[in-house]
Amino acid sequence: MAEKFKKILIANRGEIALRIIRTCQEMGIKTVAIYSTADRESLHVRFADEAVCIGPPASADSYLSIPKIMAAVEITNADAVHPGYGFLSENADFAEVCSEYGIKFIGPAPEHIRKMGDKITAKDTMIKANVPVVPGDGELLKSVEDGLKQAEEMGYPVMIKATAGGGGKGMRKIESAEDFQSGWDSARAEAKAAFGNDGMYMEKFVTEPRHIEVQIIGDQHGKVIHLSERDCSVQRRHQKLLEECPSPFMTDDLRERMGQAAIAAGMAIGYEGVGTVEFLVDADRNFYFMEMNTRIQVEHPVTEEVIGYDLIKEQIRVAYGEKLSGENYYPTAHAIECRINAEDPWNNFRPSPGPITSFHSSKGLGVRVDTHVYAGYTIVPYYDSMIAKLIVRAPTREEAITKMERALNEFIIEGVKTTVPFHQWLMKQQDFRDGNFDTGWLGQQELPEG
Amino acid sequence: MAEKFKKILIANRGEIALRIIRTCQEMGIKTVAIYSTADRESLHVRFADEAVCIGPPASADSYLSIPKIMAAVEITNADAVHPGYGFLSENADFAEVCSEYGIKFIGPAPEHIRKMGDKITAKDTMIKANVPVVPGDGELLKSVEDGLKQAEEMGYPVMIKATAGGGGKGMRKIESAEDFQSGWDSARAEAKAAFGNDGMYMEKFVTEPRHIEVQIIGDQHGKVIHLSERDCSVQRRHQKLLEECPSPFMTDDLRERMGQAAIAAGMAIGYEGVGTVEFLVDADRNFYFMEMNTRIQVEHPVTEEVIGYDLIKEQIRVAYGEKLSGENYYPTAHAIECRINAEDPWNNFRPSPGPITSFHSSKGLGVRVDTHVYAGYTIVPYYDSMIAKLIVRAPTREEAITKMERALNEFIIEGVKTTVPFHQWLMKQQDFRDGNFDTGWLGQQELPEG
Repeated sequence: MAEKFKKILIANRGEIALRIIRTCQEMGIKTVAIYSTADRESLHVRFADEAVCIGPPASADSYLSIPKIMAAVEITNADAVHPGYGFLSENADFAEVCSEYGIKFIGPAPEHIRKMGDKITAKDTMIKANVPVVPGDGELLKSVEDGLKQAEEMGYPVMIKATAGGGGKGMRKIESAEDFQSGWDSARAEAKAAFGNDGMYMEKFVTEPRHIEVQIIGDQHGKVIHLSERDCSVQRRHQKLLEECPSPFMTDDLRERMGQAAIAAGMAIGYEGVGTVEFLVDADRNFYFMEMNTRIQVEHPVTEEVIGYDLIKEQIRVAYGEKLSGENYYPTAHAIECRINAEDPWNNFRPSPGPITSFHSSKGLGVRVDTHVYAGYTIVPYYDSMIAKLIVRAPTREEAITKMERALNEFIIEGVKTTVPFHQWLMKQQDFRDGNFDTGWLGQQELPEG
Repeated sequence: MAEKFKKILIANRGEIALRIIRTCQEMGIKTVAIYSTADRESLHVRFADEAVCIGPPASADSYLSIPKIMAAVEITNADAVHPGYGFLSENADFAEVCSEYGIKFIGPAPEHIRKMGDKITAKDTMIKANVPVVPGDGELLKSVEDGLKQAEEMGYPVMIKATAGGGGKGMRKIESAEDFQSGWDSARAEAKAAFGNDGMYMEKFVTEPRHIEVQIIGDQHGKVIHLSERDCSVQRRHQKLLEECPSPFMTDDLRERMGQAAIAAGMAIGYEGVGTVEFLVDADRNFYFMEMNTRIQVEHPVTEEVIGYDLIKEQIRVAYGEKLSGENYYPTAHAIECRINAEDPWNNFRPSPGPITSFHSSKGLGVRVDTHVYAGYTIVPYYDSMIAKLIVRAPTREEAITKMERALNEFIIEGVKTTVPFHQWLMKQQDFRDGNFDTGWLGQQELPEG
């Protein structure tokens, strides 16, 4: 077993940096915060043992600058780096540089980050591990005839997608053979216009998809366990807004099958650290691998709350070589997280930076707020607009919802617009209360006007 | 079953009033706060649906004034009163007046409050229910000879206590027959001087006593369950400073015996609502009934955290006639509560009222802060000096202690002195870490100087 870390540099900012600092303090590990000049006043800077300014606000010049971060590691004599989420957390080059410097990157090996970062390689890896994937080989469709033949084989509906695509452009859902030609023509035209490339490939269309992900953790001794699921189906333009555990759509059988698939995915590559295997689950409870995130997730607290497990602590423990002690973990309560963003929900979620003039974070039994802001803090426009995560825990989903309503009503943030009113609206929707929603649900709702 | 309450008036102030408001909101029950003119700025006033000013700061003119509180009930049309702890919470007359007005007093029947409020009656009730009590019949000692005979029967050490006593005056521990005469003389002299009455009675001296209490709850249908124990042995002059669950001194067998005794105590009187049966536990794990508190306790959150149970919610549910659903509850984690008082711990815990200039309450996984104060709030000198309860939950006692250390380090309260430094000192004491302390332990320690 490697020695325990004496000092961890947290290569991140905001709430997740503070989250990591808290656990380090509970483990007796010193912490180094890094910050851009825009983040001097963030709580992550205040609560770290040391803090190093690494540059101007633009991420490329600070939080994404490997040389600057490595310089901060060197001057503070840190022996490990925690990358948090976003920024360099899934950058294999960064993990490699750390390794070259003899600094432990708290996360998986660079080759695992690379493998899971490339969609085709990731999908191939999963197929080999017998993890279900969305049917479709990713190959270029040669013609309408080729497409019709493939669609017949996999069964309608199908999706055709631009090989050069992204951001929802150059995609069409095709319901039947009669619709194929028109969908093909319009998707290709859109792809040509958007990307200068009209190559197309085909995937099975997953009906009424839920986004359900499985949390796993692996140690350096070949053991991988799962910690049940999180449902992240409440999304706006592929952005998660609310997550919960357990999923209201889950059954014991499905949890077992998805959990075993996620473990198989981790075992197949000898995965080390925390990771999330994201699946789409259709109306018939078939599930399909989407992607694997090789880092801690924004929404990890819902798992922590329902299983009583500090994911950052275990992540650090396996990083210095300890063996995992427990077996798979199952929820014993219900937790919900609302992402509180500095955005105007009734104005197309437009960012709303600026000074916070008044701030009271909800408290009480089963309420947790992870945040780096406070009254007098100014939200800067350079980074993600999430300013707090409001997490509740209660014995049942129904009680968790009423607790969330209470906690949202208690949350006071003045000076900027936030998504608190959106979540208050969401809690009142019968579909949400009934657990009757997929990833497309929110996009079909009419939101109140501001 | 009675109807659910529509509106509850909370006949209390500060953190416990806010605590009750939160649960009422989660139950869909409207709330009325009452406040003295000194408490206008308290959060309990801000977060209630309605608030009624009931008088000047002196408790006798506001929080203890039954006519004023009943007037507030009447003008707001509340259908129930929650008394919290302290103030009128164990006042049988208040419970009776509520009943006469057709208002539900959320607590036990007046006769149960009376029965447990009188030490002699309480002790007799417990003896009849086969609950162990501290040996000693409370009868006046007639002479030294009478005392020597009784002491021989119950076994040394014994305590002789002034019948008119209180506040630790006129009490002597007597180790052996040789010491009897001198102890008798000095205790009587002290009692005579202090109370003008030198009557003495005798009790068995409980060696190395721990203060361990059992939480119970009873419904209106004759069912009483226990929710395990709280260890409150860290005391200064009989004031609790820290509580935890489970007790580091507990064994499964002792918990079972104490739990059954507490249930027997409740069953014996047909107890309704939450209650706490306080015991002294000696070094040999014999336990003795001390007293029963017929209300919610300050330290109830440690129970809530380790068993995942909202005690206020259940208290309200049984008050409107619902049946208890579960059986006895056992801790599945470890919780500790530190009472944060506005006192200077290095100056004899002298109260330190005044304005709070800066305030940050600790947050993160397993950390809960119940408080009615905030930056800009002025702590008034009229009431109890407790301004916050810092509660942590972790899988083990060792982890709970390190989490508490982190949470204490993170807690920022500027402008007044607080007991945060005391608790930081306490967490470092080997005796505390080892669970090696009784109710006398703290008094024997040398505290740092300010």
